[in-house]
Amino acid sequence: MNVVLKNDLLLRALLREPTPRRPIWLMRQAGRYLPEYRATRARAGGFLQMCTNPEIACEITLQPVDRFPLDAAILFSDILTIPHAMNLGLEFEAGEGPRFERPVRSAADIDKLGVPDPGRELKYVIDAVSLVRRELGGRVPLIGFAGSPWTVATYMVEGGGSKTFGVIKRMMYEAPRDLHRLLEVLAKSTIQYLNAQIAAGAQAVMLFDTWGGVLTPAQYEEFSLRYMAEVIDALTRQADGRRVPNIVFTKGGGAWLKKIAAIGCDCLGVDWTTDLATAQLAVDGRVALQGNLDPAALFATPEVLRAETLRVLASYGDGPGHVFNLGHGITPDVDPERVALLVATVQSHRLVPA
Amino acid sequence: MNVVLKNDLLLRALLREPTPRRPIWLMRQAGRYLPEYRATRARAGGFLQMCTNPEIACEITLQPVDRFPLDAAILFSDILTIPHAMNLGLEFEAGEGPRFERPVRSAADIDKLGVPDPGRELKYVIDAVSLVRRELGGRVPLIGFAGSPWTVATYMVEGGGSKTFGVIKRMMYEAPRDLHRLLEVLAKSTIQYLNAQIAAGAQAVMLFDTWGGVLTPAQYEEFSLRYMAEVIDALTRQADGRRVPNIVFTKGGGAWLKKIAAIGCDCLGVDWTTDLATAQLAVDGRVALQGNLDPAALFATPEVLRAETLRVLASYGDGPGHVFNLGHGITPDVDPERVALLVATVQSHRLVPA
Repeated sequence: MNVVLKNDLLLRALLREPTPRRPIWLMRQAGRYLPEYRATRARAGGFLQMCTNPEIACEITLQPVDRFPLDAAILFSDILTIPHAMNLGLEFEAGEGPRFERPVRSAADIDKLGVPDPGRELKYVIDAVSLVRRELGGRVPLIGFAGSPWTVATYMVEGGGSKTFGVIKRMMYEAPRDLHRLLEVLAKSTIQYLNAQIAAGAQAVMLFDTWGGVLTPAQYEEFSLRYMAEVIDALTRQADGRRVPNIVFTKGGGAWLKKIAAIGCDCLGVDWTTDLATAQLAVDGRVALQGNLDPAALFATPEVLRAETLRVLASYGDGPGHVFNLGHGITPDVDPERVALLVATVQSHRLVPA
Repeated sequence: MNVVLKNDLLLRALLREPTPRRPIWLMRQAGRYLPEYRATRARAGGFLQMCTNPEIACEITLQPVDRFPLDAAILFSDILTIPHAMNLGLEFEAGEGPRFERPVRSAADIDKLGVPDPGRELKYVIDAVSLVRRELGGRVPLIGFAGSPWTVATYMVEGGGSKTFGVIKRMMYEAPRDLHRLLEVLAKSTIQYLNAQIAAGAQAVMLFDTWGGVLTPAQYEEFSLRYMAEVIDALTRQADGRRVPNIVFTKGGGAWLKKIAAIGCDCLGVDWTTDLATAQLAVDGRVALQGNLDPAALFATPEVLRAETLRVLASYGDGPGHVFNLGHGITPDVDPERVALLVATVQSHRLVPA
């Protein structure tokens, strides 16, 4: 593991250290828009089969990094590995999204949940991390990740994806203490899980809070942010002889950036509905920012895509601490040529030293 | 039509005039959570059949006002009546949401669209407005409504509901002038439609911008807000000898309230993700505010529902200009008894005169 990291732009930007240019990676960069991904998926037989097989997860993780000069790899996995390890009967039906056979609906259901041992029930993830680090050979850093406790809980309680989150919100209003117990188990599980990823070689970690934005401001603090703070606080901060930066991303959390920055994370993900200039004012230089091109800009003509990319670069200005990314995951129907153009545009944009 | 309005709390609050207590109505108050609505729907045969039959639309509009002492009726209709009148083949499949047989995808498709005549293709809506006004007999004011041009366009271009809005965003990036032409036709149609509703007796009107929140700040101004401003600017302001107030509601638009207030509307709808105290700071007394209880709070125990309702009342303070509502439409699985409790809680809360 003591291979020298050849490109550490991501890690420096996450810690707000100066870099000659901005690093770029893309949420869901190892995904269905790549023909090589679709080929691997057809061979593997399904999404869960890919996640749970370290060799396949490694292969998919490397695909976008082999194709484009991206500045980071992110582990190919899913935010539902923890509830999968809790034995809730996770299934991914084609085109349907995740489904749990045994959703968590009662205090008794919550009592049954244990904290999964990353070395056992989640060993396939940890093995994939080690394998990717070895295969990367120090080309770029590897990002590990987990879902936020709140976001993972929504799937466990709803039994899958939701539009209204009626079931978990009912639990929140009727039995808030039960929900807190569930979130507590998830926070503990997430800490052990991310620290195991770091021990296996993840050089940065990210918390995906995809559904924090469906809460009121007070609920967000009580049911989502509080548990992310607990996780961030307990993360291993030093590994491989260097600091392990972390990223927190609440989709739809543009109004709460100042509060999120205060939990002690290194970098905030920002979705495309908030200007980076506005986000910078909110966090006042305390954290780095990651984002935030509208993923749909990848459908534009090359000229418009280039202009939109330059607009995002300009919205951050020339200061340190910007990791270029989309404002949400890349969608399956994107032309990989557009991604090549995006990466080239960001990487040819030099930062003027202060 | 010159029946005296017995309860004008809504109209006064929308214009920021003092009221002894706050008015309350609920988005989608005439809806599936009511057993009488489900009975009428079963009899009518389907959603579109209910919308297009003035007698049935009137009957449904009155159901919540007959059951609860609500301070306003809102016309039972749909935001897709305009594209329905444009002959795009609208269908509502059970549990599937709206579908257009002939979505609008090209410049040629847009060329074919005309501005519907409210007195002909939309006569069923206008007739329903007249009928409701007559049947209400001045008990409470009647709110008319339309979708925002952007929101209606998303359904027309996507061919139905969407999660990613990939098709219309592709049009936005690749052919923005085509999209502007579509929005222009929709703005013109919306102006004629809402003014016809006002002429027929609507005493306030609301623009529902359900999907403005999926845009970047710059796109929101260019593709949604601009056309809502055009509509608001062209509305009839005086009817029945009094001012006709309007409400603009962009779901997920919490960061843009100041900009929305500047288009000259009377009241802003606020979803539950923004505190009313924060919203008041943003609009600085220029407009009234409508909202914003989390619709899921209706699943809570009576004690918690009451506490959440008082919290929303307190978050606005005692000043004029608050119309109590949910932060989004009421969901089908709510117990009507909870609605009764909510209405009673809001209506028993007296405002202290300044």
